[in-house]
Amino acid sequence: MNYAIVIKVLGKIFSVQAVFMIPSLVVATAYREAKDVYAFAATMMILLAVSFITTFIKEKEKKVHVKEAMAIGTLAGIFVSFFGSLPYMFTGTIPSFTDAYFESMSGFTTTGATVLDNVEEFSKGILFWRAFTGWIGGMGILVFSLALLPALGIGGMRIFKAEVTGPVTDKIVPRIKDTAKTLYVTYVVITAAAFLLFKIGGMSFYDACIHAFGTVGTGGYSAKQIGLQAYDSTFLHLTALVFMVLSGTNYALFYALYKRKWADIRGSGELKLYFGLILGASLLIAADLFINGTPFGQSLKDAFFQVGSVTTTVGYAITDYDLWPSFSKIILLMLMFIGGCAGSTAGGLKIIRLFAMLKLVKREIRKTFHPKSVISVKIGERALSDDTLFGVAGFVFLYFLTVVFGTMIITTQGVDLVTAASAVLASVSNIGIGFGAVGPNSSFAFFNDFNTWVLSVLMLLGRLELFTVIAAVAPKRWGYE
Amino acid sequence: MNYAIVIKVLGKIFSVQAVFMIPSLVVATAYREAKDVYAFAATMMILLAVSFITTFIKEKEKKVHVKEAMAIGTLAGIFVSFFGSLPYMFTGTIPSFTDAYFESMSGFTTTGATVLDNVEEFSKGILFWRAFTGWIGGMGILVFSLALLPALGIGGMRIFKAEVTGPVTDKIVPRIKDTAKTLYVTYVVITAAAFLLFKIGGMSFYDACIHAFGTVGTGGYSAKQIGLQAYDSTFLHLTALVFMVLSGTNYALFYALYKRKWADIRGSGELKLYFGLILGASLLIAADLFINGTPFGQSLKDAFFQVGSVTTTVGYAITDYDLWPSFSKIILLMLMFIGGCAGSTAGGLKIIRLFAMLKLVKREIRKTFHPKSVISVKIGERALSDDTLFGVAGFVFLYFLTVVFGTMIITTQGVDLVTAASAVLASVSNIGIGFGAVGPNSSFAFFNDFNTWVLSVLMLLGRLELFTVIAAVAPKRWGYE
Repeated sequence: MNYAIVIKVLGKIFSVQAVFMIPSLVVATAYREAKDVYAFAATMMILLAVSFITTFIKEKEKKVHVKEAMAIGTLAGIFVSFFGSLPYMFTGTIPSFTDAYFESMSGFTTTGATVLDNVEEFSKGILFWRAFTGWIGGMGILVFSLALLPALGIGGMRIFKAEVTGPVTDKIVPRIKDTAKTLYVTYVVITAAAFLLFKIGGMSFYDACIHAFGTVGTGGYSAKQIGLQAYDSTFLHLTALVFMVLSGTNYALFYALYKRKWADIRGSGELKLYFGLILGASLLIAADLFINGTPFGQSLKDAFFQVGSVTTTVGYAITDYDLWPSFSKIILLMLMFIGGCAGSTAGGLKIIRLFAMLKLVKREIRKTFHPKSVISVKIGERALSDDTLFGVAGFVFLYFLTVVFGTMIITTQGVDLVTAASAVLASVSNIGIGFGAVGPNSSFAFFNDFNTWVLSVLMLLGRLELFTVIAAVAPKRWGYE
Repeated sequence: MNYAIVIKVLGKIFSVQAVFMIPSLVVATAYREAKDVYAFAATMMILLAVSFITTFIKEKEKKVHVKEAMAIGTLAGIFVSFFGSLPYMFTGTIPSFTDAYFESMSGFTTTGATVLDNVEEFSKGILFWRAFTGWIGGMGILVFSLALLPALGIGGMRIFKAEVTGPVTDKIVPRIKDTAKTLYVTYVVITAAAFLLFKIGGMSFYDACIHAFGTVGTGGYSAKQIGLQAYDSTFLHLTALVFMVLSGTNYALFYALYKRKWADIRGSGELKLYFGLILGASLLIAADLFINGTPFGQSLKDAFFQVGSVTTTVGYAITDYDLWPSFSKIILLMLMFIGGCAGSTAGGLKIIRLFAMLKLVKREIRKTFHPKSVISVKIGERALSDDTLFGVAGFVFLYFLTVVFGTMIITTQGVDLVTAASAVLASVSNIGIGFGAVGPNSSFAFFNDFNTWVLSVLMLLGRLELFTVIAAVAPKRWGYE
């Protein structure tokens, strides 16, 4: 392992993080929140100091191998969350390091789970920072999943470039910056559009910012305790829904749209399945709600909103879906597993993997009749290689195992099954809300320190597609020398 | 499709079923239960009559293709369950056809779920028949999974012969009878041993029979409402545990034992994982129970018994595990998914498939470092082909989908999530007991007719390894002409 290059890259990331703290500093200053101003300033100085120290390290070679890339991704997640937790502690908002770290990890992984209750009590600067971490996280994950992962060419992750030509190519070094730039611009434009519509819909400037960050980054934070339920406005809820669904879409498709590659968009099986899933699930839930006595219009609205929110792993709620009939609940639960499209800010298993697995099952049924036939599994026009398919199957199984073992660990602390399983799923899939004691109107504050750390690790594991973290910590004898 | 040969084979199966009704007829006669004697006699006559009619059909060719074999398996499950339900209706034990069919399907698939409450009220003949259907089912499934499935060489099912040389070869016609004979003899010997030990342990002749059938066939029926809880005897519970664990073992290993092929047994990765899983899960649960206040000895006993019972999908209970802490419950839940070894009378996903998936995950992690390397997945000494591995991955995913969609359907009738999911799992994995309203001391009687039929179908799907049933009903354009 080339430790020098890992540390140098991390150092650069820390200085970027310091820069990203400026908006929160500005907000705190504008609202004259002295404690927040000091907290942000102190954290920024620490970040810059650490970053400065890393510049003294000399790297022997510039090349970043798989192991280094994985280590950078994992360590960035760990340390960025650490430095991001400092403002919570410095201001006294969250005195416990365990809880502050959880809140910070939850933000940067775009999970949006919180240990804060009565959010309105806290300062504007801190709540801005909290929402902004979710937005930064979304930006980071876009680059990670659309530029870095596919370029590394690892089996299960090759599927990220299976479908759309997009801005991704195999030549990592020259193109990674172009790709990243395109992504950033798109991301900022979409966020600006969300902000505008929220503002037009009646939100304050501050709240429109917070909710634009929460929606487009898929973190789902709010500066209101009851989130979007605070607004009795179908326009605002619809705006949130549209931008949630957009944010769960593969960003490579926005690039295709920009380049007018209509065939890429029309030919995207993942996109069709994504919209089909949202539409189908929403209608089923709406029917279930309507049959069980909810008025027709509200059934439709609640169903579409919650399906959109959960599928895109944003985690906003406009109703307490924990009170829904069990048919609707199991649909939501499955959507929590699945998540959004690959190459989006959404978490979860990703639609394209579900798509590949469904096609694999179909092929296996066909093979019942012709065991020796060769049938390729296609996504759009492209046949997936056996390597990619095995990677997907392995990933899906590992994802399931992670949820099961995570739940087992959480239950050792005496948490009921529904709460434990849905808290784990809410963390691994980076949604931030679940069922039972972690339902839409509850916080994660009641978990003990042990469980809080477990959930923090699960958020990182899920966000970095499991394999990244595992590869970073894998023992040498597993294949890397 | 060669319909003639399908009907002729079914006809033979019906006449065998008539013969298998003789013991129940004898029991009913011995206990002077006139209604039962008439019911069995009438059913036998119907079976023989139907069988006789099929002899008039002339088949053009004798060859059984995949499609025919699948159709025979599926239709046998459907019709044998139909004829098996007649005694329940003729005696008035279960007047509703829906419920009688469920009880019969539950027996023949070795599920052991029941719609009967207050079992002691019913006649000895009927309860003997009920337990015996579970035993016949176990015998049928052994031949199906050790002789027929691997010989058909279908992708996902090739794993059944992956590990042990056993009595299985590729030449289906000459060897299938030998294989079946060996299996029958082993099966009868194990059942006789279980009977003897139950008798020695203090059970009546009748109850020792019933529990030997229930244990070795993995149906898990009893003639007592509270099952093995009626006996306050550690010897009897231990006997049941040992025979449950034996019955969840690959029967090919008994053959290897008989032929003194020690290397096959020592080299069996599935067997090691099976024992490891039972041991590990039992110790974890025992620790959890002990910490939560259960006395040491009882913690161990309850944990080992329930883990053995659920893993082997027998479904006996000596304690109400639904009251266990959630850590213990999620372990049981996972074991319900996994089930026993391939080539045993146990249901579930099968240990060997779990084993293959774990090895696949390990390979994918290794591949993170060497994307272009070729690493084979081995079970024991043999490398699994890519075809087999894809078959396994497809099966595991389809199994998961079946449970999810099954649960969704059950919840449409207003059943709570835990009950719905565990009833579906109890059916697909052929266990017969779950959590919530289908806990160890409850029956399936409360489900409405719609749900009862859904669960009947799920039992058949699970028992015939999904693909069999799907292949039998698959449309022509999916590959068979």
